[in-house]
Amino acid sequence: MHAIAPELQVAAWLNAAQPLSLTQLRGKVVVIYAFQMLCPGCVSHGIPQAKAIRAAFDEQDVAVLGLHSVFEHHAVMHRAALEAFMHEYRIGFPVAIDQPSPHSPVPLTMAQYQLRGTPTLILIDRQGRLRLSHFGQAEDMRVGALIGQLVAEAAPQQARCEDGACSIN
Amino acid sequence: MHAIAPELQVAAWLNAAQPLSLTQLRGKVVVIYAFQMLCPGCVSHGIPQAKAIRAAFDEQDVAVLGLHSVFEHHAVMHRAALEAFMHEYRIGFPVAIDQPSPHSPVPLTMAQYQLRGTPTLILIDRQGRLRLSHFGQAEDMRVGALIGQLVAEAAPQQARCEDGACSIN
Amino acid sequence: MHAIAPELQVAAWLNAAQPLSLTQLRGKVVVIYAFQMLCPGCVSHGIPQAKAIRAAFDEQDVAVLGLHSVFEHHAVMHRAALEAFMHEYRIGFPVAIDQPSPHSPVPLTMAQYQLRGTPTLILIDRQGRLRLSHFGQAEDMRVGALIGQLVAEAAPQQARCEDGACSIN
Amino acid sequence: MHAIAPELQVAAWLNAAQPLSLTQLRGKVVVIYAFQMLCPGCVSHGIPQAKAIRAAFDEQDVAVLGLHSVFEHHAVMHRAALEAFMHEYRIGFPVAIDQPSPHSPVPLTMAQYQLRGTPTLILIDRQGRLRLSHFGQAEDMRVGALIGQLVAEAAPQQARCEDGACSIN
Repeated sequence: MHAIAPELQVAAWLNAAQPLSLTQLRGKVVVIYAFQMLCPGCVSHGIPQAKAIRAAFDEQDVAVLGLHSVFEHHAVMHRAALEAFMHEYRIGFPVAIDQPSPHSPVPLTMAQYQLRGTPTLILIDRQGRLRLSHFGQAEDMRVGALIGQLVAEAAPQQARCEDGACSIN
Repeated sequence: MHAIAPELQVAAWLNAAQPLSLTQLRGKVVVIYAFQMLCPGCVSHGIPQAKAIRAAFDEQDVAVLGLHSVFEHHAVMHRAALEAFMHEYRIGFPVAIDQPSPHSPVPLTMAQYQLRGTPTLILIDRQGRLRLSHFGQAEDMRVGALIGQLVAEAAPQQARCEDGACSIN
Repeated sequence: MHAIAPELQVAAWLNAAQPLSLTQLRGKVVVIYAFQMLCPGCVSHGIPQAKAIRAAFDEQDVAVLGLHSVFEHHAVMHRAALEAFMHEYRIGFPVAIDQPSPHSPVPLTMAQYQLRGTPTLILIDRQGRLRLSHFGQAEDMRVGALIGQLVAEAAPQQARCEDGACSIN
Repeated sequence: MHAIAPELQVAAWLNAAQPLSLTQLRGKVVVIYAFQMLCPGCVSHGIPQAKAIRAAFDEQDVAVLGLHSVFEHHAVMHRAALEAFMHEYRIGFPVAIDQPSPHSPVPLTMAQYQLRGTPTLILIDRQGRLRLSHFGQAEDMRVGALIGQLVAEAAPQQARCEDGACSIN
């Protein structure tokens, strides 16, 4: 039994024409890379791995999202700094800024997903279920293997309604 | 349409209690790494990648085999030299010595599979069909993705006969 | 003929009990690494190389300094951001913040030294003369070789005055 | 006090028009890389480092030599195998085959220099004195630094005789 992954709580989306939601991405495997722009392991390992995932899989099958979950140095990792970082590091995929908490240094999505830190790799299957939350570095071979297996799983049956009739396809 | 991969033509097996065959491995994804012990790209890239594949997948799902396809420097890449190489490089998976040809420097399996050189990564699916033959270096992420998808494919239906009755499962 | 390296023009020193000057470092080889905290090549190559230099040479012989020469994204690479960066990347050597220019995006030391960008490796010999200004990546072996040769050069003769008499030693 | 490095005891030279001697190389820094062709650390680290040394220094200042010191798997690391290895790995500098011992698996130069294994980096100064014997991996920065300092040391005084007169220069 895998629980449905909760929606991300997002202050702003970068590299996205409009806000994204997990519901709307249902049917694809969703890869979420939680990072901080001043986290050395994110820069040396996480960002390159996220780019490698994006290059290895068809965008029809796999959506790659960044999640900027700032839990330290809040004053210097704000939106404008992140934008400069993304420009310099040539990050082309959508990035969500995790919604800051009014009560805690840990932002809301990070808290809800109970992330231990950054980088964390989150995998959600075609049915929207949370399948992996891995803190720290993971080998490309293992990550490719996991995502490849999720890609091969059947997409959910979807009710489609056209011209007044609904069908399951 | 994917053709069934032809059986390997093997002079000797190392790290194997008995000769292996693709037929007998049917039901698993089979990864064959064609290499030469004095090929720099094989040593720096191919062998470590083969080990990473073996570590990333369950042996119930994926069999990793080496194929020593010597097409140059035959006099110094013989069986005893390969054994020393495998000992020093801690190669734990079965390795087939590609059967030399009486007529050509290219050994028989290499010729039949039309390999362009070493290293070459060959992927065979659970139904014994040839799915990839990639010469040169391939990224771990892409290789993991491909094998992961093959692992997720259904194993072939197999007729099983017990107690006088046969069934497809 | 090597010109004497001009003094750095510095807005603030980090990791230094008091402002440093090239004059005061005369007698040592001085390594200056010009970088920007959001420059990918600085993070992946320059900072680790600066740390390797510091580890490979005796501090009696070689002083390693960082020079934060911001010529883009000024609004987000200010002092507080740099301090967070240096904390996360465990930078232990003194870092000078290059003095911003009132007239140009290029800060004053960067302009005077005619640096082409970041990372740039600057080498100053024991006599205070500019011996290298290298933009981009340089191999550790070549950098070690150059600094090693500068270390082996004689320190400048210094006038020493004691007990009312002065001598050259 | 540094002892004069003893002459290498060599069964054959490869990549050399004629046998080399340390005496004849006096005046240059001599870098000797002891290796075995089937030693993984030699292949991944030592050979690339030897090539990097050769590229970083002027051949007038630094001579790079390989020393093939076989102490295991003697039957498969003979001269013809080494020649194939050197061809495949594009080794362009002279390589001495360490003279096998009639009494021990350890060859004669390896025994005399008391090497612990391969790879070992040996540095000899311009005066022919043994200055370093380092077993295992060493960082490029430290190796470059050491050789750079040796390069900067004065060459030995040499008596030169011309036109019937001799002088020290």
